[in-house]
Parts: sequence; C-alpha cells; structure tokens
Amino acid sequence: MIVCKFGGTSMANARQFEKVKAIVTANPTRRIVVVSAPGKRFSNDQKVTDLLIEAFYDSQSQNSALQVIERFTSIQQDLDLPVELVELVTTELSTRLGSSEGDVNSRLDAVKALGEEFSARFFAAYLSSQGLPARFADPQDISLLMTEPGERAQLLEDSYKELRKLKDTTEILVVPGFYGYTQSGKLRTFERGGSDITGSILAAAVDAELYENFTDVDFVYAANPNIIDRPEQIELITYREMRELSYAGFTVIHDEALMPVYRKQIPVEIKNTNNPSAPGTKIVAHRLLTDRPVTGLTADEGFSILYVSKYLMNRELGFGRKLLQIIEEEGISYEHTPSGLDDISVIIRSHYLTPKKEQRIVNRVLQELGAEVAYFKHGLSMIVLVGEGMRNSTGLAARATAAISQTGANIEMINQGSSEVSLVFGVLEKDKEKIVRALYDAFFQPVKLRV
Amino acid sequence: MIVCKFGGTSMANARQFEKVKAIVTANPTRRIVVVSAPGKRFSNDQKVTDLLIEAFYDSQSQNSALQVIERFTSIQQDLDLPVELVELVTTELSTRLGSSEGDVNSRLDAVKALGEEFSARFFAAYLSSQGLPARFADPQDISLLMTEPGERAQLLEDSYKELRKLKDTTEILVVPGFYGYTQSGKLRTFERGGSDITGSILAAAVDAELYENFTDVDFVYAANPNIIDRPEQIELITYREMRELSYAGFTVIHDEALMPVYRKQIPVEIKNTNNPSAPGTKIVAHRLLTDRPVTGLTADEGFSILYVSKYLMNRELGFGRKLLQIIEEEGISYEHTPSGLDDISVIIRSHYLTPKKEQRIVNRVLQELGAEVAYFKHGLSMIVLVGEGMRNSTGLAARATAAISQTGANIEMINQGSSEVSLVFGVLEKDKEKIVRALYDAFFQPVKLRV
Repeated sequence: MIVCKFGGTSMANARQFEKVKAIVTANPTRRIVVVSAPGKRFSNDQKVTDLLIEAFYDSQSQNSALQVIERFTSIQQDLDLPVELVELVTTELSTRLGSSEGDVNSRLDAVKALGEEFSARFFAAYLSSQGLPARFADPQDISLLMTEPGERAQLLEDSYKELRKLKDTTEILVVPGFYGYTQSGKLRTFERGGSDITGSILAAAVDAELYENFTDVDFVYAANPNIIDRPEQIELITYREMRELSYAGFTVIHDEALMPVYRKQIPVEIKNTNNPSAPGTKIVAHRLLTDRPVTGLTADEGFSILYVSKYLMNRELGFGRKLLQIIEEEGISYEHTPSGLDDISVIIRSHYLTPKKEQRIVNRVLQELGAEVAYFKHGLSMIVLVGEGMRNSTGLAARATAAISQTGANIEMINQGSSEVSLVFGVLEKDKEKIVRALYDAFFQPVKLRV
Repeated sequence: MIVCKFGGTSMANARQFEKVKAIVTANPTRRIVVVSAPGKRFSNDQKVTDLLIEAFYDSQSQNSALQVIERFTSIQQDLDLPVELVELVTTELSTRLGSSEGDVNSRLDAVKALGEEFSARFFAAYLSSQGLPARFADPQDISLLMTEPGERAQLLEDSYKELRKLKDTTEILVVPGFYGYTQSGKLRTFERGGSDITGSILAAAVDAELYENFTDVDFVYAANPNIIDRPEQIELITYREMRELSYAGFTVIHDEALMPVYRKQIPVEIKNTNNPSAPGTKIVAHRLLTDRPVTGLTADEGFSILYVSKYLMNRELGFGRKLLQIIEEEGISYEHTPSGLDDISVIIRSHYLTPKKEQRIVNRVLQELGAEVAYFKHGLSMIVLVGEGMRNSTGLAARATAAISQTGANIEMINQGSSEVSLVFGVLEKDKEKIVRALYDAFFQPVKLRV
C-alpha cells in the first residue's frame, strides 16, 4: 500500500484536483490520500488557511470568509460536484466562526482545520463522481487522537493500533491532513505544515511500502535556488540528512513529519504533482556513499547569542546547567552552546526573545550565577553543511573554512563534533549569501579542467 | 611593593636559598616573599611534599619522614642556621604524623603543609642570620583564612581586609605558600601548586605593583618543548591567554592563581631563579596585537565523550539541561557540549569517570530522557590555539584546519565561538603530537622564502 499526501498547490483548484486524481488512480495501491487545504494558484494568491486565520481574527469584515467560500464554490462548479458541498462550507464556516465554546486557541484550531476538511470532502466527492470507490475519512472516526491542550500537539501513541485497521480498506480513503481530535473530543491541529505529519503517521500505521509526498517541485535542491542559480538536485538522501537540512529553512517537508516513517524505515518520495513522471527525491535509511561528501547546504537567519563570562567558570560544577535552567524558565529552546574555559555562549532563535526576556535573563545570570559579563548579540545566520559522507572525510572542515575565509567574512561560531552528518557555522547575517555561494562552489561545482 | 613567590626548585637546597636571597635583596621593594616546599634537586629526586604524603600514608616505615628531616638538616648545616630549627622539624613532624585529631583529610593537610612551613621558617632564619630584617609570617597570624571543609578550599573574601595591613611591613615577611586556616582554626591547604595562589592573594591584598613568580624556566614557551624542538618564547601574554593555555596542561602557573591578580590587574612576571636577569614572561591585562594571531598552543589527553542522540531532540525544551543535571548529580564537571540537531555530545575529563558511573549515566539518559542512543567514547585529546589576535583574524580556522588535514588526521570536534581568544579541536590521542607539530609549523615557523 502507498500512502500519498498532496500539498496546498496540488489542491489549489479544479485543474489541480484533476491532476491529483490522475496520479491516485495511476497506481491502485495508492489507497490512502492525505490532502492539504487549497494553497496558492498563482504567486500573489492567498492560501485558504491564511484566509481562515484572517476570518477568525477579523470577524467584522466578512471578506476573508467570503473568499474561502468562493474558492470552494469554483472547485464545486468546475468539477460539477453536488451543490450541497458548498452549503456545508457556508454553514460550517459560519458556525465555527460564530462559536464561543472553548478558549481562543481551540476556536482558532477549529476554524483553521476547515481548509483541510473541505479539501478532503471535495476531493472524495470528486473521486466518487468519477465512479471511483472513495470516501472522506474523518480524523475522529479513524481515531487520529491528539494530546490534550497544554502539551505540544502530537499524536497519542495509542492511536497507532486503531489507525492500523485502515490497512484493510478497499476504498480510497481521503483523509484531511493537519488535525485530529483529543480524547475529550476537541479538534486540535499540528503545527503549520502538519499535513505532512498526518501522511507520515498513516504511512507508519499501515506499514506502507512507500510514503509519497506530492508538492510543486521536481526534487529537493542541494541549496537554496534563490541564492544559487540552478543548484543540483538531490536524488537520494537519508532521513538524517533530510532532518539536518530541515534545521535551517529546508521547508520541502515538515521536519516532524519524518519521525513516524523514520521509525518504521518507510521510504519517502518527494514528487511533483505537476510533473509526476520526474523521478523526484527519495528519502531512505541508508544509501551508498558517493565521492561527494556533502549532500546539501542550507542557511537560516534570525539567530541571537547570549554571551556569558566568569573567571574560573570551568571550575564551577553546574554552571552550564544553571544557565540553561534560567533560559528554560523563560520557555526558550536553544540551539548550541559553544564554550571556552571561562565563557559560554548560547545560540537562540531570535523569535524566542523580547527585550524584557533578555533583560530578565541577563540580570539573573549576573546576579544568581555571579557572572562578570552577560549580554545578547543579534543578527546571526547559521549555515549547515549536511552529508553522510562527511564523517569519513578528512579535511572537510579545512575545505569549508577555506571557502568561507576567501569571502573575507569572519566565522563567529563553528559547531562540529556531535552530529556525524553536519557541520554548522555561525556567521553574520550580512555575510550569509556570499558564504553559501562560496561553500556551494567548494563542494558542488565540477572541478574545472585546465585546457 | 613587589610580592614574589619562589617555587619548589628555587627552595630545593642551600645553594638555591642563596640565589633566592640574592634576588630578594636586589630590590628593596621585594618585601613579601612566598615560598614553596623544597622541590627536586635533580631530575629523579623527590619533592618534600611527596615525601610528607608518603610518610602520612605509610606510617610503618619511617623512611620518608627521615628523608624530610635529612633535607632540612642539610639546609641548616650548609647555611649555618640554628640547630633548633631541625629540632622543630623533628618534633612537629612526629606530632602531626602521630595526631589522631580530626578526619583523615584534615590530618593529611596538616602534614602536607609542613614542607612550606619549614621552608619559610628556614628561609626567614637564613635572612636574619645575614643581618636582614626578616621574619616568618604564620598564615594564622596574618589571617589567611580559608573556607571550611566541605566547601572547595578557597580564601575567605573577608581575609583581604586583614591581609591588606601587610602593606605597611618594614621587615621582609617570609610567608609559607599553599595553606591557611579556617575560622575554627583548622589548617587547610589549597590544591597542589597552591603556593602560586598564596602569592597572588597577597599581591592583590597589598595592591602590589608586581607579582613575581620565580620558577626554573626563563620564560613560558609557546608550545610544549617535549613535542616541539626549541619552541618560541612568550614575552608578553594577557591573563585571558594565560588562562586558556592553562586549560590543557600549561603548568607554569596554577590556573586559579591568576584570579586575585587579574581582578586587581596586577602584572605578573614568570622568572627564573637560576637566571634572574632573563626578561621572563610578563602577564598583563592588555597588550598590543602583533601580526601573529596565535600566542601559544597546548594539548592535553585524557578526555572522553558522552554521545546522546534522540530524534527531534531539538524540539524538547530542557533536554540539554536535564542531561547536564544527570552528569552533575554524579559530581562530574564537563568541558564542552557540541550539538547537532538531534544529538549532543558532552566532553568530560576521563578521570572523572568510572565504569559504574558511565553505566549509571547511560542508563538514566536512555530511561529518563528517552534517548535512542547513549554511549561513552574514550581516548580523546583537546588541542587549544590561544591568542588575543584570533578574534580579528579572518581565515584563522581555515589555516588551522588545513594544517590538521595535512597530517591525515580526522577532527573529532571543533569548538569555536564563545571565547574570543581560543579555538579548541578534539582529536584522537594518537594524532595529538603530529597535529601539535603541524599547527606549530602553521602559526610559528617563519615563512620560508623562495631562493
């Protein structure tokens, strides 16, 4: 059995629905289909999920809600679907927008999830209308159970037993991505991009032979095409490599989505709905190493450093732990903690910080830990080189640092030594692009032969 | 006023006492003299402190105790000092070795400290016998007060007020290094090498213009002379550089000893008792940068790595902190924590570990933190490049990694990003020496000109 998931652009309009139908029916083992909410039809279009969020927060203006109805109406009309579907959209949307039950997060979740729900209902209806044995599978009916609010939104481990029964379906099940229900019956969404997670969970639950993730690119690029002109395509990549690449803005697949398939070692294929015959990028547990140590490189902005220094710090048992505790008490996750003898830095994504939080942290570090110096510094980028071949490659750090130094940029931080498949450089944001280019040239450009 | 401290080889015998007297009297502002216990007179000689420890643990054989008495007897005879001094040595040694007061640590401290006490008493008597105004200054009388047992052995901050009065001495005060007394009157020693600390404390207390640390080398080398043939000498170095070099086996001055003088920004000179006219190495707060970014390089063995991996680790708030807490609960200090996205390594000095501790830590990490992988790996060396010029030097990491890669060795860990004056590489112990040589060549050898 194949579980396939179709992203927002794949469900954007009737034309895309037709492409998806063609893909699903081309292989009879594609029997579980997970869909996103309709995405952008053209570059400055709005995604249905964004319209729903706007509708929720701006209940005065009905403009956004109307646009949602319009999007689904045109799909219904173009595909000749039953008009009751549009009535359902109108009713359900106004019910949920008007509801005052539960707290604001639960109500927002209920509204946000409508994009996927309608998308799945419409697509199931479309398949049925074409004489195919298909039905909409409600996450509550198939027991896609979520953790209760307060905890991070995650599948309950127990759900797998029930979900496993979907293995026996003879129909094509169209499952809305992105949400499930808590045991007390509350609708709850995953993080944005969570349809990938739904697909991965179902693939793991039914022991699929393959999880296909259909999007709008032919393959995963080895680097950001906005920085590198026509970067190489990745044909085969391991879970670990994909996971490390997702650290810094590789958004092809939601990083949490790999977890369920990783545990079951189910291969994943990233494919293009608009060009399904392209081979795509395959994610697997193991691959043969090539002579290229680096598989991909990625970069992300928006990092800050908390720098702390105290004479004889390294003789104080528990100093680092206490520092991390202070940060944790502000609800902040950190990325790395490079350290010298008497100083330690904590790399944090800047979006976790506010001037108030920074002040509180600095004060506590100075007072409670007796540090001599403590301050925040902003505007850092992290650049990550990823590749299974890296662990065996002597001189890789030398090649990378040489490439960076040729740009004239300084390296603010190097983190190597834990992951065997990645090497992380902290640099100033202003230097990010030129360093990405230099590293790409160093590891991906064919060696030019002298003529 | 100058505070000067003389190490073990400087106090090893009568001939050395004469050299020290010559140094002290050459400058009338040298009025506080801190002395170590007599050290080695020749390479396979025993230090008096080691003899005292042996005498304490092996009370059956009187051999070690007799050797201590012999050492001081020959100094008394060679310098024509009053014979009562030797009687004091004999009596005090047998009293303290025979004492059953207090716990084993207190009793050991009391015995260990005798080397410094006798050394100071003998040297004060020698100066007096030469007509100089000198006296032995008992740490209890001058209020060199220590923390109580249970806490790490440190000076009580309050002592500084009393110690400051020594500023007004008109005599030459000969102070035994290495020990003080708790407020309840118990003798307590610093860590081994603690005479450096006593000297530094006194220099800070009296606001000395200079703290001279006399040892048996003309200067501090830029690298280990056992690995590098005639390494360059360091003339000027900052406290921070000296401190980072002390991380990995630079034992010229006890690393804790720099703290008191660092806070008062009192310059330190490392000089040679056997060649006092050599300029020595000066440790200061600031120095002008030269065109050489690296001041020194050092390497130490005996490090282990705890490797921990868990899928989606970086999404778990508090994972790193909890890991460090487990390690802290075993009483273990750690050095660095390089981290990937889903893995973190903790670098620990191997002497902290036992198979039992390792097993407990691994079990807790797997069970309490739900990690998928956790294991220890041993046999690592840390190599540290140190230099105030490093923070402004683009391409320094490139030069260093290129030098290492030319040896064919792998880099297990790179830690750069917190200290502005150091860059740490983790390598396998077997590769340590060749990497030190390669790095020394890269940063210290004069560029060879083409002929």
